[in-house]
Amino acid sequence: MSSTAEVYDRAGFGAPVVRGARPALLVVDFSRGFTDPAYPTGADMTEAVLATAQLVATAHRRGVPVIFTTIAFSSPLEGRAWLHKAPGLAALQAGSPAVELDPRLPRDPADTVVVKHGASAFFGTGLAALLASCGTDTLVVCGATTSGCVRASVVDAVQSGYGVLVPRECVADRAQAPHDANLFDMQAKYADVVSLADAEAYLAGGPETSQPPQDSPALTEVTT
Amino acid sequence: MSSTAEVYDRAGFGAPVVRGARPALLVVDFSRGFTDPAYPTGADMTEAVLATAQLVATAHRRGVPVIFTTIAFSSPLEGRAWLHKAPGLAALQAGSPAVELDPRLPRDPADTVVVKHGASAFFGTGLAALLASCGTDTLVVCGATTSGCVRASVVDAVQSGYGVLVPRECVADRAQAPHDANLFDMQAKYADVVSLADAEAYLAGGPETSQPPQDSPALTEVTT
Amino acid sequence: MSSTAEVYDRAGFGAPVVRGARPALLVVDFSRGFTDPAYPTGADMTEAVLATAQLVATAHRRGVPVIFTTIAFSSPLEGRAWLHKAPGLAALQAGSPAVELDPRLPRDPADTVVVKHGASAFFGTGLAALLASCGTDTLVVCGATTSGCVRASVVDAVQSGYGVLVPRECVADRAQAPHDANLFDMQAKYADVVSLADAEAYLAGGPETSQPPQDSPALTEVTT
Amino acid sequence: MSSTAEVYDRAGFGAPVVRGARPALLVVDFSRGFTDPAYPTGADMTEAVLATAQLVATAHRRGVPVIFTTIAFSSPLEGRAWLHKAPGLAALQAGSPAVELDPRLPRDPADTVVVKHGASAFFGTGLAALLASCGTDTLVVCGATTSGCVRASVVDAVQSGYGVLVPRECVADRAQAPHDANLFDMQAKYADVVSLADAEAYLAGGPETSQPPQDSPALTEVTT
Repeated sequence: MSSTAEVYDRAGFGAPVVRGARPALLVVDFSRGFTDPAYPTGADMTEAVLATAQLVATAHRRGVPVIFTTIAFSSPLEGRAWLHKAPGLAALQAGSPAVELDPRLPRDPADTVVVKHGASAFFGTGLAALLASCGTDTLVVCGATTSGCVRASVVDAVQSGYGVLVPRECVADRAQAPHDANLFDMQAKYADVVSLADAEAYLAGGPETSQPPQDSPALTEVTT
Repeated sequence: MSSTAEVYDRAGFGAPVVRGARPALLVVDFSRGFTDPAYPTGADMTEAVLATAQLVATAHRRGVPVIFTTIAFSSPLEGRAWLHKAPGLAALQAGSPAVELDPRLPRDPADTVVVKHGASAFFGTGLAALLASCGTDTLVVCGATTSGCVRASVVDAVQSGYGVLVPRECVADRAQAPHDANLFDMQAKYADVVSLADAEAYLAGGPETSQPPQDSPALTEVTT
Repeated sequence: MSSTAEVYDRAGFGAPVVRGARPALLVVDFSRGFTDPAYPTGADMTEAVLATAQLVATAHRRGVPVIFTTIAFSSPLEGRAWLHKAPGLAALQAGSPAVELDPRLPRDPADTVVVKHGASAFFGTGLAALLASCGTDTLVVCGATTSGCVRASVVDAVQSGYGVLVPRECVADRAQAPHDANLFDMQAKYADVVSLADAEAYLAGGPETSQPPQDSPALTEVTT
Repeated sequence: MSSTAEVYDRAGFGAPVVRGARPALLVVDFSRGFTDPAYPTGADMTEAVLATAQLVATAHRRGVPVIFTTIAFSSPLEGRAWLHKAPGLAALQAGSPAVELDPRLPRDPADTVVVKHGASAFFGTGLAALLASCGTDTLVVCGATTSGCVRASVVDAVQSGYGVLVPRECVADRAQAPHDANLFDMQAKYADVVSLADAEAYLAGGPETSQPPQDSPALTEVTT
């Protein structure tokens, strides 16, 4: 019987992403409702927030577009089907502190905040058009949760025509098993799961950018 | 330390889906390229195909809209970013036997076949408009693979405003761990993972339809 | 040589819209920036605003979902390509009075306000998903401008699977010729252009709803 | 009382489009059902087809991506709401000669044909993702009809983040008044309406590309 790695290798998965010259940085749902453990929907994501803050600073320095997302509901008709299944998210009401971005993230007036009502940063938002108008070719995706909105955004990003990098230190989840399982799926089919150092070097430009990815892990069977 | 079940329960996940009066049946990527193990991208999915065939027959009998999807590329520019990451899927060329639907599935002239170039049945297709024009409120999703196109389609379905049921006997994958992990994620956040019998009773109408779901599993920690 | 009416009749245009049992009311861009002539992008639209206010009140009374849109830019990357062509719209900055809805329109806490960065109420917004989750089958579209955001929203509405009614007293434009030309196009290909009284009767329910449209004009050559 | 030109000038419309370095050519619905007057939905569009053929040849020579669209229905559920309003379009059945591209257009294996069920080339199709994966920044739009699918595609193109050029010799309609009225709207709000020679020079590269547009007409009141 074949291992998952053998099966996926035969299917032709896990090739390295093409890294382009016009990246953008997407930070998914690092709002208080997710990163502050005081909220029922939150968890302590300090390490991932701080690692992401470092990437955001680099992006700001290099003029790379930075887009933050936050889930925020303004009307009882927004996100209805999803809220039937995941009613806890209904706490993310527009105007409440829960939907504010984590204050540990550096901000710049040129940044964009995308308000969303679904899992994906692209669904029902202007994100795809914004990236097209920037000429973006590659998206670095950070944020929370790995098994929810990050995964959904990464799938939409590659479907939308972008190469996708996911720095593993910059994504976080409420629970370890879904985090690991979704990193595995993303690396196999949708994105390169890379180190923070690699993503940092890529965004900073310089010689690393045009080199082949150095730590896109071979597709190995994770403990899913 | 909390178990995943406790954490998810606190976050308010896993509530039962509202089952409406106007369902549709979506069968994702049960094409030869996925269901015939002779293809590198394929695997033996006989049990899931036959279980799905039973649901399709019920849908036909009840006048429930049936939509099949198949991945098929007609131009070198379609699906480019995805094919960089998962080059094995480039074998799914329009006009080749690999993209034909599995012949064990019953077909009706009123069925719709959606050709797609991404993971989700909704992405870059007319599916959302088609469902809106049918007045659909609930989507039963079958097909392959659980960890790929089924997951992506289910996420888009709930984002698109539909309640979603996933009959577990009707979805299949190349490998067990990603299959299990994605059923867990879907049940927690996006859909009710139900039995074939439950989905069958729901599509067939009758008393079951308006009853609460009988086997939406409590959110228990699966072996991800 | 054929008249436009003859040519369009031969092509099979202008059939009456199917009016469903679950309407919604969409009010496009009746914000101060459009309805207050003090703004460069505005014009006096008092009659259309007051006629729309009457429809909104009826919708509120009958529990018909009401969705308002407003154009509002929060970041320099939103709507970029459009703002290159139509730079005057850049005045519609989020938080400014220009993006507030016209105060003559009645409001209800259950109403939804959709913020958009393009012409269509559907483009890059959650509107399609919201309507799907309401089970909407028919959209009554009011607002401004007839030749711009109303037209774009009507085209997207019918593409999205909805029957569309445009009450002619409830749409307004800055100039007469584009207003007339776009009413003609919409009536021919995308929507029934109806009277306020007809739309009012339809939203109010009662016998009119199930009768054939009484004033969908035959497709006559307007003075375009 | 102000002329339309004065009103639009005050509103800040009609600025020249930014022409980028990575154009693509979109040819909308130049299928037999539109360009062969023997079809009820068709008209003689010989001049526009031949002018477009010249641009396609230039695009092929320069490696500019070429995308053709055709309306083709494969299921009774596709395009339903639109076909209620415009039932004549139901003749455009997949597999019939009516949906074949006009044979006077040059073709290349690298070209993409997008099948659509609505007015816009972007709606329910993979076009936006395809353009993003090409790094496209500017779209030259030809085809039929000016007042229908061209207009709808142009609006979606600028919403999607692209600068848009419409070579006036390359678009056609069944009737003159809607053709003129829609060229006026597009030039005012969504695209530069240019000459074939200008579009040709732009696609061919060379000095013209980086010069300001030479024939984007000042916004003058057309005979709408």
